[in-house]
Amino acid sequence: MIDQNRTIQIAGSGLVGSLLALRLLQRGFNVKVYESRPDMRKSSISAGRSINLALSHRGIQALKSAGLEKEILENAIKMEGRLIHDLEGNLTFQAYSSRPGEFINSISRRTLNVILMDAIEKIKPNAIQFNTQLKKINSQSGIAVLENELKQSEEFTFDLLIGTDGAASACRQYFMEQSARLHFNYSQVFQNYGYKELTIPPGPNNKFLLEKNALHIWPRGHFMMIALPNPDATFTATLFLPYHGSESFEVLKNEDQLVTFFNTHFKDAISLIPHLTQEFFQNPTGHLYTVKCSPWHDADKVLLMGDAAHAIIPFYGQGMNCGFEDVFIFDQLLDQNPDWNSICKSFSEIRKPNSDAIADLAEDNFIEMRDKVADPVFQRKRKLEMQLEKQFPEYYSKYAMVTFRPDISYYDAMIKGRKQDELLMNICASEKSEWTESELKEIYNKLVNLSL
Amino acid sequence: MIDQNRTIQIAGSGLVGSLLALRLLQRGFNVKVYESRPDMRKSSISAGRSINLALSHRGIQALKSAGLEKEILENAIKMEGRLIHDLEGNLTFQAYSSRPGEFINSISRRTLNVILMDAIEKIKPNAIQFNTQLKKINSQSGIAVLENELKQSEEFTFDLLIGTDGAASACRQYFMEQSARLHFNYSQVFQNYGYKELTIPPGPNNKFLLEKNALHIWPRGHFMMIALPNPDATFTATLFLPYHGSESFEVLKNEDQLVTFFNTHFKDAISLIPHLTQEFFQNPTGHLYTVKCSPWHDADKVLLMGDAAHAIIPFYGQGMNCGFEDVFIFDQLLDQNPDWNSICKSFSEIRKPNSDAIADLAEDNFIEMRDKVADPVFQRKRKLEMQLEKQFPEYYSKYAMVTFRPDISYYDAMIKGRKQDELLMNICASEKSEWTESELKEIYNKLVNLSL
Repeated sequence: MIDQNRTIQIAGSGLVGSLLALRLLQRGFNVKVYESRPDMRKSSISAGRSINLALSHRGIQALKSAGLEKEILENAIKMEGRLIHDLEGNLTFQAYSSRPGEFINSISRRTLNVILMDAIEKIKPNAIQFNTQLKKINSQSGIAVLENELKQSEEFTFDLLIGTDGAASACRQYFMEQSARLHFNYSQVFQNYGYKELTIPPGPNNKFLLEKNALHIWPRGHFMMIALPNPDATFTATLFLPYHGSESFEVLKNEDQLVTFFNTHFKDAISLIPHLTQEFFQNPTGHLYTVKCSPWHDADKVLLMGDAAHAIIPFYGQGMNCGFEDVFIFDQLLDQNPDWNSICKSFSEIRKPNSDAIADLAEDNFIEMRDKVADPVFQRKRKLEMQLEKQFPEYYSKYAMVTFRPDISYYDAMIKGRKQDELLMNICASEKSEWTESELKEIYNKLVNLSL
Repeated sequence: MIDQNRTIQIAGSGLVGSLLALRLLQRGFNVKVYESRPDMRKSSISAGRSINLALSHRGIQALKSAGLEKEILENAIKMEGRLIHDLEGNLTFQAYSSRPGEFINSISRRTLNVILMDAIEKIKPNAIQFNTQLKKINSQSGIAVLENELKQSEEFTFDLLIGTDGAASACRQYFMEQSARLHFNYSQVFQNYGYKELTIPPGPNNKFLLEKNALHIWPRGHFMMIALPNPDATFTATLFLPYHGSESFEVLKNEDQLVTFFNTHFKDAISLIPHLTQEFFQNPTGHLYTVKCSPWHDADKVLLMGDAAHAIIPFYGQGMNCGFEDVFIFDQLLDQNPDWNSICKSFSEIRKPNSDAIADLAEDNFIEMRDKVADPVFQRKRKLEMQLEKQFPEYYSKYAMVTFRPDISYYDAMIKGRKQDELLMNICASEKSEWTESELKEIYNKLVNLSL
């Protein structure tokens, strides 16, 4: 059995750090969390990256283990499929699944984080020390240096420090400094795209101005816009646009150019965004990048988790779900391993191929969302998959495996899903778009017999 | 014409920084070099990574432009091919080329660096400020902070700062800090191998104990040793060994294990290394890693060059040659571009695909050197290539293009060389190892007609 008396220090009380702290407190560990930002419950600062989150089964499974799934889902809005807006404003609905219970959930990052922090403090008041920045780590001495609210340096001794401090992790910086000793492999890859958040307010009587229970997409080939519903009847729209080129951030320099651009490409949306010019020119431009690294642990002293270990781009809606699944798996490993070193090692070995897989799938899906959803072959394939799922409920598409089947790892979902996709895209290359029951049966048999 | 009055600051007076400074001084620019280490001419410190260097045509071309190739080649030792040592100590010679003048040159890093520094100071005494560490850069303000010999901070203003400060570049750290603004892509990948330098002293009457004009290789599949000649009749041997596994650094814990290991795998070498135990356990273990990044420049203010921009592993003998070629290309761009911004931009665009190519080729060649040189198919292929080169002097193998043809870029050499290799390996898969003139002609025609 592992040593229950060990103090576990957590750097970062974002979504993953908070859920991790909560589970460890629930298991009776002594836990202390350091957070560089002020308490979001007492201030108006943003909860970080503000793209809405799409909570799905992997994340829900982890929240369930902490007993919070019900409270959290009450604050979310179901999204049952993608609603595609074409250039003329025509709508096409692509359901995520034809099985009951298989939808995704729009939730605000802040709401979720606040629920988690409140749950932590119910068990241990003041478990989270805010306005405290991690400055330096030394795993050999087990001493870390913080800078507190008053800009004073503070030292603390740690048994195990877990870095859940996000994509720009200060903990990971320690691994970089120790590259030669740890043989630390690291990559950061930026998309040539930035994003801008825009707001669609409620209509009269607080009505949603677009279909409420859908994820809206305006796919435009080399760029796209999406919109997710919020409980206050607003939508958060996000425009993804290249930095450079003929349609890009660099050419949209003034109101005229912006309005012309929106009138050309997002005609049905422009009237819904009253503060377009102001938001576009005043909101910060977000960046999209993928971080991969290994190892994630320095013996049994420091461990990276969540975005600190594997930041991904948001196009599979899995960043948070993957981070929550980290906590879920870590939690299971606590029961299965004899000591902290093997917990950290097993965690890295199990999670690394899976986080690499979802990183790659998210990059693929960016192309799919902005480009392929409007493609006829892809649309026929989506239709065929829906028919397959109806006739054979045991059939799961790649998207459905990733989103609704936590029992299938990301890696397995990627391998199996890519083979399925290849087969189905070949079938849909012909213009046929109706299939008889026996044809579907034949296709299904081929899918089942794919060699994996 | 570019502004000749601009001061160019260079961080790092290693091989690339020194050659760059020299060329810029020869062109009449105002140049200042900052070097973190002490002056190697006045102290016994090592010149950094001490693996011997194999100077070949790309490097020589750049040294020629600075008028130094003659002096430097006088200090080098010709290596005309690989001399393979098998388990029983049998030797097989693989010439690098059958054309005259196509050999590589073993030279000491220190000798080379000293010649370059002396040439700089002949033009501008005190151009190099030693013991001065770059601490901080701000490209917007054009101000950098140094720490001098007395640990005092010094500021300087720069027009253009060129970072030639090696694989662990402090300049590149600035690009990392500015990742979001520059969309800075970065990767570092460690081999699972470390290396250890060992010394083969001269024999009686200062005779070389192994063939002088060859690069010696003991290929052993998952590990290998090499040895390069030095002018003092010593050889520097380098053992490349995995960190972990059945034959690895982790299992060689004491003298007995080490001697048994050498007796088993390097029987003909063990008697040549009198201080084996002492050197193996006291010399530091070197690490092998590849660094790729982009962009290499921040507008016309900061530019990375050499290992700072593209560190590669040493198995194609091209690290220094590639860095010197950087200087050669940069030098040409000074005549071809109207301003510093386009010089920096063109430099990155031209060199990035080429440095990526040599990085990948070096990783491939590590496998080739430790494993394939002992493989019968590979040996037949090498023999076939030698016959082709003899009968058709215009035929260049991948290795020969990379090593002896600066007029062919690394990228083109990689693309063309890989296609040639594929064709020849297929031919040599059969056990045939003699070819008639007309058969050679037929093979040569196939090589010429490869679609590229």
